[in-house]
Amino acid sequence: MTLLPTELRIAETHRLVEPALLAALDRLDAGTRRACGYHLGFWDSDGQFPAEPTTRGKGLRSVLAVLSAQAAQAPPEVGVPAAVACELVHNFSLLHDDVIDGDTERRHRPTVWARFGVPDAILAGDALLSLANEILAEADSVHVHVAVRRLGETVRQLIAGQAADIAFEKRDDVTLEECMSMAADKTAALLACSASLGAVLAGAPPTLLTALTSFGRHVGMAFQLTDDLLGIWGDPVRTGKPVLSDLRARKKSVPVVAALTAPTMAADELRDLYRRPDPLDEAELARAASLVEQAGGRGWTEDEADRQLAAGIRALAPVDLPDPVRDDLARIAGQLRGRST
Amino acid sequence: MTLLPTELRIAETHRLVEPALLAALDRLDAGTRRACGYHLGFWDSDGQFPAEPTTRGKGLRSVLAVLSAQAAQAPPEVGVPAAVACELVHNFSLLHDDVIDGDTERRHRPTVWARFGVPDAILAGDALLSLANEILAEADSVHVHVAVRRLGETVRQLIAGQAADIAFEKRDDVTLEECMSMAADKTAALLACSASLGAVLAGAPPTLLTALTSFGRHVGMAFQLTDDLLGIWGDPVRTGKPVLSDLRARKKSVPVVAALTAPTMAADELRDLYRRPDPLDEAELARAASLVEQAGGRGWTEDEADRQLAAGIRALAPVDLPDPVRDDLARIAGQLRGRST
Repeated sequence: MTLLPTELRIAETHRLVEPALLAALDRLDAGTRRACGYHLGFWDSDGQFPAEPTTRGKGLRSVLAVLSAQAAQAPPEVGVPAAVACELVHNFSLLHDDVIDGDTERRHRPTVWARFGVPDAILAGDALLSLANEILAEADSVHVHVAVRRLGETVRQLIAGQAADIAFEKRDDVTLEECMSMAADKTAALLACSASLGAVLAGAPPTLLTALTSFGRHVGMAFQLTDDLLGIWGDPVRTGKPVLSDLRARKKSVPVVAALTAPTMAADELRDLYRRPDPLDEAELARAASLVEQAGGRGWTEDEADRQLAAGIRALAPVDLPDPVRDDLARIAGQLRGRST
Repeated sequence: MTLLPTELRIAETHRLVEPALLAALDRLDAGTRRACGYHLGFWDSDGQFPAEPTTRGKGLRSVLAVLSAQAAQAPPEVGVPAAVACELVHNFSLLHDDVIDGDTERRHRPTVWARFGVPDAILAGDALLSLANEILAEADSVHVHVAVRRLGETVRQLIAGQAADIAFEKRDDVTLEECMSMAADKTAALLACSASLGAVLAGAPPTLLTALTSFGRHVGMAFQLTDDLLGIWGDPVRTGKPVLSDLRARKKSVPVVAALTAPTMAADELRDLYRRPDPLDEAELARAASLVEQAGGRGWTEDEADRQLAAGIRALAPVDLPDPVRDDLARIAGQLRGRST
């Protein structure tokens, strides 16, 4: 199999970032390190055997952070502390979200709380959040303080997004605007941070930082909307999550809210299903998915994801970027929209 | 009531730190801010009425951090970001520990998870940890990077201590050394950080930092050992915790482990009680407390707390300190050992 230039560069990024991630984990006590490395897919739950490669995350935030340093004409190494910090923050939030949402499976394996217990999962998340700050604060750059503040602001947005997500589950009057704002906080904020944090460390000028941040935010929205679509229509074998999981948990994801807020009979029926006190059975779940589609929730979300992707690419147009960096960013953005996992 | 000079200075410290803490909370989304401020005792669970003063923490870490800046001849304001950071880290750990331990009451009120639910409590803790790093990183000092690293290292110790605490509950071969090491991580590390972090921001010389850190560590041990004693023999009305709570949860606290590892018949009986699969009734809990005392666990812990207190005071002897700062540190240390809440 021949790798395309972008794929080669992504592989190269992982070769840079992975040792730094592992070195960060080595600062932790043995038990917490084991749970964190299991979550990150570095090893199995006994801490001894290398996990299957399918258990690893995509490392998307690492790749964006390193590319952002290169966008500012710096060598990729400059972006590595930003890459590690963003990857750790992402995984901190996954660890705690899995506890909060009660999700038992991620990347084809039991989640950390399901495997090691809730206390270990809470502590593992705490450890990754703290390590993220530590590693970023140690970066060899005069712009470290700006980077640390940007990361802090991003974590607050992540928390606000997750808090809104939980609050929405108890409400049935969530507007599409609130729902999009939740997605912006929960997902797009960290992508915006990732796509600019390496450039911050590299001392990029404000125009470039603004462009990269905007790129990351729009692409992050496209990514979350695609995720929401996969949460209903994704193939469980590919996503590693149970089929129709978002509907089962009655998540107010974007396609659902777009459907619920459409003035259609399908929306009314969907609302009734979502209001039922008891768990929905398989037939009802399938019916709910079909109603989201009939009420136009699927179509709106597909279109909006495409609009966000286009806006992301457009954000980069006015700035001067090395050609391979521009190509890589565009290709990655396209993959995020087109993905099936 | 006339306040002593130390008490006046402590009140003055709170007047400096409190607005900075409140300003930090203002950065959070409304729901998370409400839960955090409830936990900190700034308001009731509806977020509108001032909570009773008894619901506030002692602000011990704030006071130490501000004093440490003054120990380095800096004005108290220099220590404020360190005070806020340490206070936030302390409260992050309380929020998550309450979830992990299933504790339903703290400072005479329902804990955050008991009042708002586990998801809100997890997110509130995450928010405080992240804010701590943010506030410290924004401090106006050329030594910020050293301070941020020290805080990161401390959080890792906190996590290691809490992880050990949990692991110990499943083991019945915990040594006294392991138990003391757990207490050092869980409590003394953050006191050591608090008692030196303001001085770090103030650019204190290494000898002073070492002395303040050692003071904080020893006094922190005395504090934890006193806490362990109160967890068994404390008055619930004063501590705000249920009577005999540590024995009920079969915590491997220092007095318990000191008792279990003593070669006495009382230790054997205590071990049998701790091994019972069912919850202990009130009579059995009272018996367990009595056995800890008979096996020498109470006496050893009292003596060790006094030794740690003395070592803390001794650590400050070789360094030059402003007289009021030395007086305040000694008085606070004494109060921590002598407290009943």
